[in-house]
Amino acid sequence: MFLEEMDVKRQYINQALKKHMIPEKSYPQIIHQAMHYAVFNGGKRLRPVMVLEGANLAGRAGEDVLPTACAIEMIHSYSLAHDDLPAMDNDDLRRGKPTCHKVYGEANAILAGDALLTGAFELLAQNAGIHGITEGQVLQVIQKVAAAVGSRGMIGGQVLDLASEGKSIDLEALNTLHHLKTGELFKVSLQAGALLGGMDPRGLEALIEYGRYFGLAFQIQDDILDVSGNEEITGKPIGSDAKNLKTTYVTLMGAAEAGKVARACVDRCLGALSGFDSRADFLRRMAAFIIDRDR
Amino acid sequence: MFLEEMDVKRQYINQALKKHMIPEKSYPQIIHQAMHYAVFNGGKRLRPVMVLEGANLAGRAGEDVLPTACAIEMIHSYSLAHDDLPAMDNDDLRRGKPTCHKVYGEANAILAGDALLTGAFELLAQNAGIHGITEGQVLQVIQKVAAAVGSRGMIGGQVLDLASEGKSIDLEALNTLHHLKTGELFKVSLQAGALLGGMDPRGLEALIEYGRYFGLAFQIQDDILDVSGNEEITGKPIGSDAKNLKTTYVTLMGAAEAGKVARACVDRCLGALSGFDSRADFLRRMAAFIIDRDR
Repeated sequence: MFLEEMDVKRQYINQALKKHMIPEKSYPQIIHQAMHYAVFNGGKRLRPVMVLEGANLAGRAGEDVLPTACAIEMIHSYSLAHDDLPAMDNDDLRRGKPTCHKVYGEANAILAGDALLTGAFELLAQNAGIHGITEGQVLQVIQKVAAAVGSRGMIGGQVLDLASEGKSIDLEALNTLHHLKTGELFKVSLQAGALLGGMDPRGLEALIEYGRYFGLAFQIQDDILDVSGNEEITGKPIGSDAKNLKTTYVTLMGAAEAGKVARACVDRCLGALSGFDSRADFLRRMAAFIIDRDR
Repeated sequence: MFLEEMDVKRQYINQALKKHMIPEKSYPQIIHQAMHYAVFNGGKRLRPVMVLEGANLAGRAGEDVLPTACAIEMIHSYSLAHDDLPAMDNDDLRRGKPTCHKVYGEANAILAGDALLTGAFELLAQNAGIHGITEGQVLQVIQKVAAAVGSRGMIGGQVLDLASEGKSIDLEALNTLHHLKTGELFKVSLQAGALLGGMDPRGLEALIEYGRYFGLAFQIQDDILDVSGNEEITGKPIGSDAKNLKTTYVTLMGAAEAGKVARACVDRCLGALSGFDSRADFLRRMAAFIIDRDR
């Protein structure tokens, strides 16, 4: 039931991405092909769906915030294309398919990432004026998004991740890393939709809390899947964290204990939504799903 | 005289960059150090000065548009850090100093570039509200800047540049490459300042024309300096274009003829400014300087 609903939303986001991204055949073609390859790679589209859900909760149609939702997914895709590069995580496969630099070469993969990030801000700006969304609201979103994915946010998390490879770090350091690398983008996705919907500050606080724990639960489940997942379903080699000597929730406390922490995070997510009515039900199901998923 | 004036403006921009960029000691430190290294590398600051001049011409104090000026220079710096990477131009030196990836490693140089680009958009958004600059004006600037430096602008130019290495291309293809890779950012720098100053459409058109030919003259002079410059002054090895089998104005028509085309571009710049009074004098001197420079 949840998966079918999510699938409909995923297709809706994919259509919007096709509409809002610069067409694949634009000149110079190679860069636009690489950008589309990096985006249309079988992603779950969790983050753009959160943008839509944030807007819904504030009483605005998800349709109104599609440019912002697409921009968030473009940022997520750029970060994956850059993270996969030989100089970073050096991954050849993502979701079972060759990574962007494997297909288009390193230079084009770097430039495609740069162009997705740039295009994302262009698209964020274009959300102004849609059904009364104000220029002030959009500028606020641009600032929040830039801060969330910048050197003190998502990029900072990748820096910490690279710096910690081959070292053992403690739980606090691992939490900081996860929060920056994964949590910040989930958090700002919900926040962006809610801001454009005109959500009140108390509601915003609750959604930020949800996003934070959603991101953490997501990351712990990733850690668990890395040791116990099915390679054909996850699309990535099992045991790569151990191979890369990465500290994870599983290496720190074992899979069973990590699963408990993830479940506690989901409880925090549900608690954060207690002030919302049934319109938050999809977010409730998303939180439960995140630790049930097998990929 | 011009050089002294330019030096004062350069120092003014450097101070503003120090103020507006995330401090070097912020956590995680390595990324902020790499960002500062990439920005404070002895650059001429031509583009941010153009932002200020554009605002001046429209009757607004340059001070009001400093966040935008700094953002433009951060974008320029990110593009250099990425262009220098081993997967791209593979340059070890820039202005006589080791390039960002030589000092901080490839991963951090990629991430520092990403973070400068991200931070630039955050900074652009922060220009709203300064002495009556409207949210609408700033959103327009964000869209123009993103388009100018995106996959159909500056990044597209770098794609064409990489694709043309080792091949001979004709003058038209070289012009397109230069226009995208160099011209677009100069153009949008002036345009951004002028837009924030409230310049009328006719004035904007004239400035866009100036920026286009300024960029071309700048690039042709770069081509000339690559064969006839002084390595100690330019800070980069002479003859690197020939070594990389690059088509340049000099390879296509010889240095003397290329110099003539550059002078014709400067004339177009001056012609574009004919409708402006003495407030455009600094831009006039900048255009003349660009083909006189030795670095």
